[in-house]
Amino acid sequence: MKRTCIALTLALASTGVAAEGAFNSAEDAIEYRQAAFSLIKENFSDMWAMMKEKKPMDEKAFAQRAQHLSLLAQIPFTSFDIAGSDKGDTSALPAIWQQRDAFDAKAGQFQMATERLALVAKEGDAKAIKQAFGAVGKTCKGCHDDFKAE
Amino acid sequence: MKRTCIALTLALASTGVAAEGAFNSAEDAIEYRQAAFSLIKENFSDMWAMMKEKKPMDEKAFAQRAQHLSLLAQIPFTSFDIAGSDKGDTSALPAIWQQRDAFDAKAGQFQMATERLALVAKEGDAKAIKQAFGAVGKTCKGCHDDFKAE
Repeated sequence: MKRTCIALTLALASTGVAAEGAFNSAEDAIEYRQAAFSLIKENFSDMWAMMKEKKPMDEKAFAQRAQHLSLLAQIPFTSFDIAGSDKGDTSALPAIWQQRDAFDAKAGQFQMATERLALVAKEGDAKAIKQAFGAVGKTCKGCHDDFKAE
Repeated sequence: MKRTCIALTLALASTGVAAEGAFNSAEDAIEYRQAAFSLIKENFSDMWAMMKEKKPMDEKAFAQRAQHLSLLAQIPFTSFDIAGSDKGDTSALPAIWQQRDAFDAKAGQFQMATERLALVAKEGDAKAIKQAFGAVGKTCKGCHDDFKAE
């Protein structure tokens, strides 16, 4: 982000051009969801590293990661509504649009699994955390198997 | 995101290398917050376009943007804790680390303003929405003036 949102506001107010990057194109929508999934991956990867003892477990940091993951799980899916965002620089498979109900159901499962992980991570029961983390991983895999190119 | 999170998990499980992109470096932290702010900007820009009648007002879409903005407002700030993330490809000013309490206070104001906007956007009172949207813009500006290079 090279400019501030207020600088953007002022610049646009003076020029009258449409706000850039506001899902005005399929490319914007693709970039938006890729940014959201990159943040999701970052949080998941850090929790994974702690779960697998690749880095020291920090329960507070883990709980914060889990909370952020559950917030970010809400973000990417509206972008799939944007016409044309099935084409171009995307690894989203046509099956998303061909079986939209199934895709939305899997997105919902991912959201629920991350909410549960955030809850148990705050409570701190190691066994429950392990189980909830595994469940999140399964929802990732379940959706990627059907709806994302490798 | 080129690989699925489960593919990442399996790849890492087999190789034993540390999870990539998990704030293992200052560069990761910078990329993380830049991705988060790009999503924030996208939502703000789209609401701005509706508020300024650059595109038709869609109350449902606006409310969803506002909700997503309030979730995303929680995301970037932990990245500023990462040592070395004040250097490199960042427009974050040294003042963030020199006056961290003031920075955190402004981040908190931004988060509160976006929460309020999400609330009033759901309620649908145009005057309250305009006021709450303006307040969000002020918190952007207030923080960027002091803490972000143009």
